[in-house]
Amino acid sequence: MASAMLKVAAAGVSRCFTLLRGVSTTTPLCQGVPRAVWKLGKLNHIAIAVPDMERATALYRDVLGATVSDKVPLPEHGVYTVFVELGNTKLELLHPLGDKSPISGFLQKNKSGGMHHICIEVDDIKAAVADMKAKNIRTLSAEPRIGAHGKPVMFLHPKDCDGVLVELEEA
Amino acid sequence: MASAMLKVAAAGVSRCFTLLRGVSTTTPLCQGVPRAVWKLGKLNHIAIAVPDMERATALYRDVLGATVSDKVPLPEHGVYTVFVELGNTKLELLHPLGDKSPISGFLQKNKSGGMHHICIEVDDIKAAVADMKAKNIRTLSAEPRIGAHGKPVMFLHPKDCDGVLVELEEA
Repeated sequence: MASAMLKVAAAGVSRCFTLLRGVSTTTPLCQGVPRAVWKLGKLNHIAIAVPDMERATALYRDVLGATVSDKVPLPEHGVYTVFVELGNTKLELLHPLGDKSPISGFLQKNKSGGMHHICIEVDDIKAAVADMKAKNIRTLSAEPRIGAHGKPVMFLHPKDCDGVLVELEEA
Repeated sequence: MASAMLKVAAAGVSRCFTLLRGVSTTTPLCQGVPRAVWKLGKLNHIAIAVPDMERATALYRDVLGATVSDKVPLPEHGVYTVFVELGNTKLELLHPLGDKSPISGFLQKNKSGGMHHICIEVDDIKAAVADMKAKNIRTLSAEPRIGAHGKPVMFLHPKDCDGVLVELEEA
């Protein structure tokens, strides 16, 4: 952790920041090492990998009565998507597109489908990622990438997040 | 499906209802069989089973900066719970309590933890459950039960919901 924090210090941030929320009051907020200021936001979506997009769409639209989007192909991400609106957030149904879809392996292991990841918004992805690295949370890529919604995202390693693949998206 | 729909008809509902939302306009809304009127609501929570509650709580509170609740034992449901507030919805961290916890088997299969279920609100659980049965969606109990929040709930079978355990809660 120390070397990662030094890297943040070396990035030219000179003042001592504290996290905006959620830091235990028993934790020293400043020990001479600056911290990035960023805020966790709302749940953007829950992604569900489905083996049959038409059947999954019918479940949420015709059985549960939700409003659903059209099916959208995202070839650069290797998935088809359908969004299910739930008022306060949405489900993102995912089905493989092409030979190298990132969810093909998941569906081979989970034939019926299943919850693939959750996406939580942050206001500053670079600051959030620097903080994750400083706190020994592994990420699935070295730098944020442009996600399926055209915004910068970073996936956190499920082994460091209680078996949950967590996507942070700058909103 | 026919016999289940007849049961609904026999329940004394005499008018022909339609679902409030999401029914395809190509689907006949009324064929002489009344349908229950109910509405799907917002996402109440995502439940995450965790092998180490203190570590999981620290992840969301100290690393991601979310507001978290105290740990609450619910012996009648065989779980400890911690809620993570995300503004628009919440995560429900679950850890086994006692020898017969309903999430022990899940954690044996998923050592690191994982997403256990999603909970979506409905305004009328009995009407929703009657509709599920009429549409051949299996439920995990014959009747709604009182859930961990003191409200009537029903779990839908993951095999009928793309591998996702879906909890409907009357809100």
